[in-house]
Amino acid sequence: MDFDLIVKNGTIVTASEVLPPNLEIGIKAGKISCIGTALPASSQTKIIDAEGAYITPGGVDSHVHLAQKNSPTGDTWETGSRSAIAGGTTTILAFASQPRSETSLLPTLEDYHKKSLNQSYCDYGFHFILTNPTPEILEKELPLLAAREGITSVKLYMTYEAMKLDDGEILRILFACKELGMTTMIHAESHDMISLIIQGLEKKRNTAPFFHSLARPRIAEDEASYRAISLAELADAPMLIVHMSSEVAIRHVRDAQTRLLPIHAETCPHYLFLLSEKIKGEAHDHFSGAKHVCSPPLRHEVKDLDALWQSIANGTFTTFSSDHAPAKYDHPGGKLLGLIDGIPKFSKIPNGLPGVETRVALLFGQTEACKEPEEARLSLPRFVQLTATNAAKLYGLDGKKGSIAPGYDADLVIWHPGKTGACTITQPMLHHDIDYTPFEGVDVGNWPRYTILRGEVIYDKAEGIVGKIDYGQYLKRGKGQVLVGKTGNIPRGMTEDERKYWR
Amino acid sequence: MDFDLIVKNGTIVTASEVLPPNLEIGIKAGKISCIGTALPASSQTKIIDAEGAYITPGGVDSHVHLAQKNSPTGDTWETGSRSAIAGGTTTILAFASQPRSETSLLPTLEDYHKKSLNQSYCDYGFHFILTNPTPEILEKELPLLAAREGITSVKLYMTYEAMKLDDGEILRILFACKELGMTTMIHAESHDMISLIIQGLEKKRNTAPFFHSLARPRIAEDEASYRAISLAELADAPMLIVHMSSEVAIRHVRDAQTRLLPIHAETCPHYLFLLSEKIKGEAHDHFSGAKHVCSPPLRHEVKDLDALWQSIANGTFTTFSSDHAPAKYDHPGGKLLGLIDGIPKFSKIPNGLPGVETRVALLFGQTEACKEPEEARLSLPRFVQLTATNAAKLYGLDGKKGSIAPGYDADLVIWHPGKTGACTITQPMLHHDIDYTPFEGVDVGNWPRYTILRGEVIYDKAEGIVGKIDYGQYLKRGKGQVLVGKTGNIPRGMTEDERKYWR
Amino acid sequence: MDFDLIVKNGTIVTASEVLPPNLEIGIKAGKISCIGTALPASSQTKIIDAEGAYITPGGVDSHVHLAQKNSPTGDTWETGSRSAIAGGTTTILAFASQPRSETSLLPTLEDYHKKSLNQSYCDYGFHFILTNPTPEILEKELPLLAAREGITSVKLYMTYEAMKLDDGEILRILFACKELGMTTMIHAESHDMISLIIQGLEKKRNTAPFFHSLARPRIAEDEASYRAISLAELADAPMLIVHMSSEVAIRHVRDAQTRLLPIHAETCPHYLFLLSEKIKGEAHDHFSGAKHVCSPPLRHEVKDLDALWQSIANGTFTTFSSDHAPAKYDHPGGKLLGLIDGIPKFSKIPNGLPGVETRVALLFGQTEACKEPEEARLSLPRFVQLTATNAAKLYGLDGKKGSIAPGYDADLVIWHPGKTGACTITQPMLHHDIDYTPFEGVDVGNWPRYTILRGEVIYDKAEGIVGKIDYGQYLKRGKGQVLVGKTGNIPRGMTEDERKYWR
Amino acid sequence: MDFDLIVKNGTIVTASEVLPPNLEIGIKAGKISCIGTALPASSQTKIIDAEGAYITPGGVDSHVHLAQKNSPTGDTWETGSRSAIAGGTTTILAFASQPRSETSLLPTLEDYHKKSLNQSYCDYGFHFILTNPTPEILEKELPLLAAREGITSVKLYMTYEAMKLDDGEILRILFACKELGMTTMIHAESHDMISLIIQGLEKKRNTAPFFHSLARPRIAEDEASYRAISLAELADAPMLIVHMSSEVAIRHVRDAQTRLLPIHAETCPHYLFLLSEKIKGEAHDHFSGAKHVCSPPLRHEVKDLDALWQSIANGTFTTFSSDHAPAKYDHPGGKLLGLIDGIPKFSKIPNGLPGVETRVALLFGQTEACKEPEEARLSLPRFVQLTATNAAKLYGLDGKKGSIAPGYDADLVIWHPGKTGACTITQPMLHHDIDYTPFEGVDVGNWPRYTILRGEVIYDKAEGIVGKIDYGQYLKRGKGQVLVGKTGNIPRGMTEDERKYWR
Repeated sequence: MDFDLIVKNGTIVTASEVLPPNLEIGIKAGKISCIGTALPASSQTKIIDAEGAYITPGGVDSHVHLAQKNSPTGDTWETGSRSAIAGGTTTILAFASQPRSETSLLPTLEDYHKKSLNQSYCDYGFHFILTNPTPEILEKELPLLAAREGITSVKLYMTYEAMKLDDGEILRILFACKELGMTTMIHAESHDMISLIIQGLEKKRNTAPFFHSLARPRIAEDEASYRAISLAELADAPMLIVHMSSEVAIRHVRDAQTRLLPIHAETCPHYLFLLSEKIKGEAHDHFSGAKHVCSPPLRHEVKDLDALWQSIANGTFTTFSSDHAPAKYDHPGGKLLGLIDGIPKFSKIPNGLPGVETRVALLFGQTEACKEPEEARLSLPRFVQLTATNAAKLYGLDGKKGSIAPGYDADLVIWHPGKTGACTITQPMLHHDIDYTPFEGVDVGNWPRYTILRGEVIYDKAEGIVGKIDYGQYLKRGKGQVLVGKTGNIPRGMTEDERKYWR
Repeated sequence: MDFDLIVKNGTIVTASEVLPPNLEIGIKAGKISCIGTALPASSQTKIIDAEGAYITPGGVDSHVHLAQKNSPTGDTWETGSRSAIAGGTTTILAFASQPRSETSLLPTLEDYHKKSLNQSYCDYGFHFILTNPTPEILEKELPLLAAREGITSVKLYMTYEAMKLDDGEILRILFACKELGMTTMIHAESHDMISLIIQGLEKKRNTAPFFHSLARPRIAEDEASYRAISLAELADAPMLIVHMSSEVAIRHVRDAQTRLLPIHAETCPHYLFLLSEKIKGEAHDHFSGAKHVCSPPLRHEVKDLDALWQSIANGTFTTFSSDHAPAKYDHPGGKLLGLIDGIPKFSKIPNGLPGVETRVALLFGQTEACKEPEEARLSLPRFVQLTATNAAKLYGLDGKKGSIAPGYDADLVIWHPGKTGACTITQPMLHHDIDYTPFEGVDVGNWPRYTILRGEVIYDKAEGIVGKIDYGQYLKRGKGQVLVGKTGNIPRGMTEDERKYWR
Repeated sequence: MDFDLIVKNGTIVTASEVLPPNLEIGIKAGKISCIGTALPASSQTKIIDAEGAYITPGGVDSHVHLAQKNSPTGDTWETGSRSAIAGGTTTILAFASQPRSETSLLPTLEDYHKKSLNQSYCDYGFHFILTNPTPEILEKELPLLAAREGITSVKLYMTYEAMKLDDGEILRILFACKELGMTTMIHAESHDMISLIIQGLEKKRNTAPFFHSLARPRIAEDEASYRAISLAELADAPMLIVHMSSEVAIRHVRDAQTRLLPIHAETCPHYLFLLSEKIKGEAHDHFSGAKHVCSPPLRHEVKDLDALWQSIANGTFTTFSSDHAPAKYDHPGGKLLGLIDGIPKFSKIPNGLPGVETRVALLFGQTEACKEPEEARLSLPRFVQLTATNAAKLYGLDGKKGSIAPGYDADLVIWHPGKTGACTITQPMLHHDIDYTPFEGVDVGNWPRYTILRGEVIYDKAEGIVGKIDYGQYLKRGKGQVLVGKTGNIPRGMTEDERKYWR
Repeated sequence: MDFDLIVKNGTIVTASEVLPPNLEIGIKAGKISCIGTALPASSQTKIIDAEGAYITPGGVDSHVHLAQKNSPTGDTWETGSRSAIAGGTTTILAFASQPRSETSLLPTLEDYHKKSLNQSYCDYGFHFILTNPTPEILEKELPLLAAREGITSVKLYMTYEAMKLDDGEILRILFACKELGMTTMIHAESHDMISLIIQGLEKKRNTAPFFHSLARPRIAEDEASYRAISLAELADAPMLIVHMSSEVAIRHVRDAQTRLLPIHAETCPHYLFLLSEKIKGEAHDHFSGAKHVCSPPLRHEVKDLDALWQSIANGTFTTFSSDHAPAKYDHPGGKLLGLIDGIPKFSKIPNGLPGVETRVALLFGQTEACKEPEEARLSLPRFVQLTATNAAKLYGLDGKKGSIAPGYDADLVIWHPGKTGACTITQPMLHHDIDYTPFEGVDVGNWPRYTILRGEVIYDKAEGIVGKIDYGQYLKRGKGQVLVGKTGNIPRGMTEDERKYWR
């Protein structure tokens, strides 16, 4: 027994427990080798004394957009991964996105590998966005992605002209993924509802940023979510609905989970903390609302937030991701694209917010680590589930990422001891390459003291980024787990026997 | 006070009451002039003694396909309307169907008028099926239909290659109809689900008629119904979902009605009385199952029927229509189209069943007029609502059709007195031009003794058809009513103020 | 054909239709003899010209407390019935209340007949409040009440020390009533919840009138309503839950009706129009809040009102009654009982509000007769159902009361023509013997022009009360109807076969 | 680092993960000291090679009746605890039961300590059954139990003449427990429903054992569960509903959990595996059905089982306990009490089944350790939650019992490697002192190889019981956790501010 690093005296939190205090984590060759007491240290062993601190798994952010071609002013792998680790995230899953004009995924894959290679401070993997699911892709390339590349998840869009798939395409992808043990992520908003409203708003010249939130009403999310769940039920295939923001849509997920359909749900920090009034911008500069334009949009009322917090606490949400999809604000290729001849046109504003760095601390700030028990919004184990464990399981990283247990990668976040009072988010403290944060001024109460990836400290609040740009490893992932519960042989959509007549 | 006809001694049933016995209905010039006692008869006055009989409003069948181009072996106006009156229906609403290739509705309208003129035994009106809703049609022709022709309802399809509209088209139609006070009927099944299943079934050579019922699972109806309701909610426009057959879909309607969304629902006799085992055909002739091929298909289990009967009784269904859409069975242009080189191919079988003649008696047979109270499935007033009153209100015929009250057309059905025991449906007793009935052998317990249209007996069970082929009048209809309840100012989909920014 | 009275030119509203205008109602010997056009008038025939007016059935108020021993300062039969007719109500059902100490109902019955005989301006019947359901009463007296007295409904309380029955007693009564075709009304609030809260409030000296609303939270109604429905389901016996005020409780009813359980629901004007802030009293006189003390209490939020209006419109409520249960305010035996040595004690304030006179106009004011269509809360036929028809059916007066149809008693309300603008309720305009109205200042938009009972004008807005104190007749009622829909043979609680082992 | 015992080569399962294989568990002084790889063994260290085996936490059975006065022929502490360890259970919580006649809990407590001291093979704690909650008990004795005795849970009955509390008593207990951080367990069946049915059945001489299942219909559980939840909501106090068996009742719990009410639910093996047909007894001996008499009763239909399995998998159930409450069958003081003069009288049959030994294996047999993935009913981590972790957390044993983690007691179950095929439950293999098992013939697929308590092997399948009768320790428990999720400041029943006026 011989450790490279021992982290002492902290309180370890897992997805199910806050462990007894003062356990020691012995780390060897980047992995957690041992958890126990009185671990033997040699002279080579580095010691971190985490007295009074909580230790949580390194964050897994499973929804990050980096260096996508269609987002020229967003973060690069360098700046995005740097921002991630400064916020306690040690693994990101980013999107390789098929251009609709291409009938093979391989060029995009190669390109994305090239962009990320030796350019990431944290470990990383790829989801693939499918926009043109040819039979060739479904039958040949997806198996190859899964087997050779460890890419075991795809993302689909039900909206956006350039990305939208129809229900038949979605079904075909669900069936293909099911056979391969791949997870399907889906952006669920009704394209036709939204298009019609935008058309109407533009006709009436209602194009200020705020109208973005009118153009994508909750009902567009509610309908598309129900439809997506129905498609998954017919295929009996797992699905995750990304960035959910509407109470009724989430109720559909809850009902599906009650029935043991393999439906997972994700939400994001901005839907829990921000309201649509932000999109109105500042009094002297309405266009600054563009900073808060994302889809689905921020919702109007406090009760929308409450419904999401309820689903955070009651277990409906599977993952809590950043949907880091930023564009610079004051840049002609960024949010200013929505300003045409000085006139705002919300439909041209690039969608998305920066958030990869602020995600983990925002949620940690709502646990009993930072709040009095009666004010806390979630428990520490639930925090761990939402920020790390569940994403790791769902996306095939279990056994390696997302937990503090022997055999796992030694990816840890060590928090400042105690409820250290105000820690307010401001743009200058962040490490992204974006010129604003939507969470400016939000108090989070605590911030990671150390971020540790495979046994190496890569972020130290006192010193800043101490990791290296080429330290992050590409992750070949295995099959994802279904987290909704075993089912025996429950009919979904139709009986399994009926399904056999046509699959 | 001077009457052409007095109907005496019967028990009148309205949509809300079984009136005291032995009232008299005084009829003058085709209208109910008076209801009361001791009405004075002159020597000119014809008397019908309805002693012991129930008198119900002439049936209004709001879902009848006659003489559509795409259904060459179905009933003509002559045979269809003849069949209607023999079964107690005095008003039918049939479908003028826009071919997708035509960008004006007017040729179809003209053609349909021509076909029906002087060819109907009963009064009649038209719905218009929209398959290509051009701006011209929405902005100019629909207003013309409503104002000049009294056509105040359209029907849309979410499935069938030749008819299917996308969600944006549906929304545009809903908005157009809302402004005109027109009702939108919608066939709600998920086209993409069904297409994919059919493709799979055919690939695996599972093409016998029975596979039709597998190809259109309940979930296809459930999803499309939810979607249709969401579209109607966003538009805040009234809608009727036609021929509903699935419990979950109906639950969506019930929930919508609870929330006072203007959603109406229709079901049909075959979904209440028949199961999918019928589609298996006879032991020696599986293809005979084609007789029972319709869409949505007959469902598999008794609990499906029970769910529908529940919704009959609890008020969820607005109308009970025949969806008379027959094709001859033993005819090369009829159901045999689904037999290709002797091999059945369910996807080629013309969809639809005959039912305009059996509809009213089938439901009457489940009231306390024919059943012991504890066995009855619905009350007599509910029977009247479902077979006559509600359709008249929904489709703008109120004040004229659908009720037994002074000022209304004297359209009456007089039933044989008492629970007259077995009356079994058989093909020979029917007046359609189709070579089978799907209800062969079903016992209905009673049958109309007289059918009276505008004061004239047009069907007399003892003598058969006594009306004339040119007696039926074309009905110009007014705006339809919303039957779900007033709402004050309840937000639907969004607030009315929000909607104003884009409509 | 010879009429005592003809009402001309009005627009008749029934429970299902607004009939064509300008029909005439011919009345003979107190009954509607004929409805039609061009009715012959003799020289004896009185004519009322109702040009431009709506004519609705005389109101049936099925929840009225008059001259109960335990309410010494409430209305007498004289003042209560006078107040009723001035507000368009022609039939009231009042409560004969068994004192718990008495093991026979007969003395109370005799007493109540004595009090009411020749003392009522309107027709009337009795419900019986059971507080001590001995086997003798259940097996012998209830059948006698039903058969000899036409008393076919009982009322039970789940709360109030002096009235409360336990669940076993309620079940036994439900079974007894079911066999007799009697309807069970139930006041559903959790006695134990309320008692505990009152105890706590008093211990902390929180005894001002407003605390009454805290002492009876919605959850007390929600729980008891669910329990009552469960008891009715087990017994498979019809029930009406009186004066419902809470959204969740009503949702339980809605769910029960969806499942075709024979559950009916009543609400009252004060729950639709007033909020609990009223109970705070006036700024200079907090005790005046006592005027608004009733049980269940007025609720806190506008969304409570909205939920009730929704259930008015969507059909969940069966009846809309006054729960006229007044006590004088400024009287030592009235509301002042709650002021002890000058200190308010809410638990001693007599419960209940006056409302028999204002009920009908308050609801009429929310129909399209008084509101623009988009502002109306309910349709005119729904108004008729709620104020007259449904109560008549439920309580065994169908065929006689509650509808405008030949054969029925000629009980009519004729409304001032048109939307006659402001008609504001004030105490001086009312005819009760109570010194305030809780609806002071509420604008109703219209008021009955004439109230007609059995063909006689008994109230004329221009002249006031014109009926006579001994004109009202005692009504022997028949078996009530179940209004929730026929059910065939649906298991409730258990199967009918299972139930037979023990009933 | 120096271990008394190392368990090698197994696969550890926690409440959230199946850990990587081949980890080692180092145990010192009865506690898990270390989990890791390559743990150093000294010559003193005992080694267990668990190659190929799963290792799960020692079972915590939180619902066990032992040596209760009112159950003379059930198990003693000796036989019950012996049976527990042979089935993989290392901790039991048993019931000290207040006789209603006693106004202090202390004599019962003393007696129960005396009976159990040095008489238990496994660790154990007490719940207290309250049947007479005097103010003295609530205000003085409960705090003493919690603080001095570590008894932090009470159990209440809503039924049984000798135990039943009314709703007010339940509320007072909930408030008292809430302040002390105690958990309230509740047996939820409607006493009044059941009493009335039993009365009816007996009157009709339907007294065979099977009628027990008719006497306690699902609706009795549904209603009482809803009521119990409402009481807990009003008090905002945590509750566990014990031994749930009915779908609707569980749906109430699910809804409550969705809303974040602190409601927990328990089910038991017999409700998942057995149907009421068992109560019919054998063909030649109907009274043998008495063996399966328990309350709530076994339910009638497979769909009842399915609903429970669904709630096992979807997370609604918090704990899975045995409700070991046996009585000998062929014994005059046991089940034969229900045979009076040779005539069966179900209401006299002692309620309850033996099950403490079979519980863990029955559920393990449904995981993917014993079933193919598509047939498994639950995951291994969910198995661990249900059989150990959740009970430990809920009842204040977290940090000590219920998990395999450093710092916890070394309580382990080591399972035979692999899916070892048929392991059929039979009476002879069991260690209880009861003459039958209700699970006779059920195949469980696997059985514990070793049961380890605080580092000592106490059961070895090869050798049988190897622990000692005085090895079990009494457990002083801390405050229980609420497992439903943090809530911030969500109103329950009323707002917290409103509640302050009376608590």
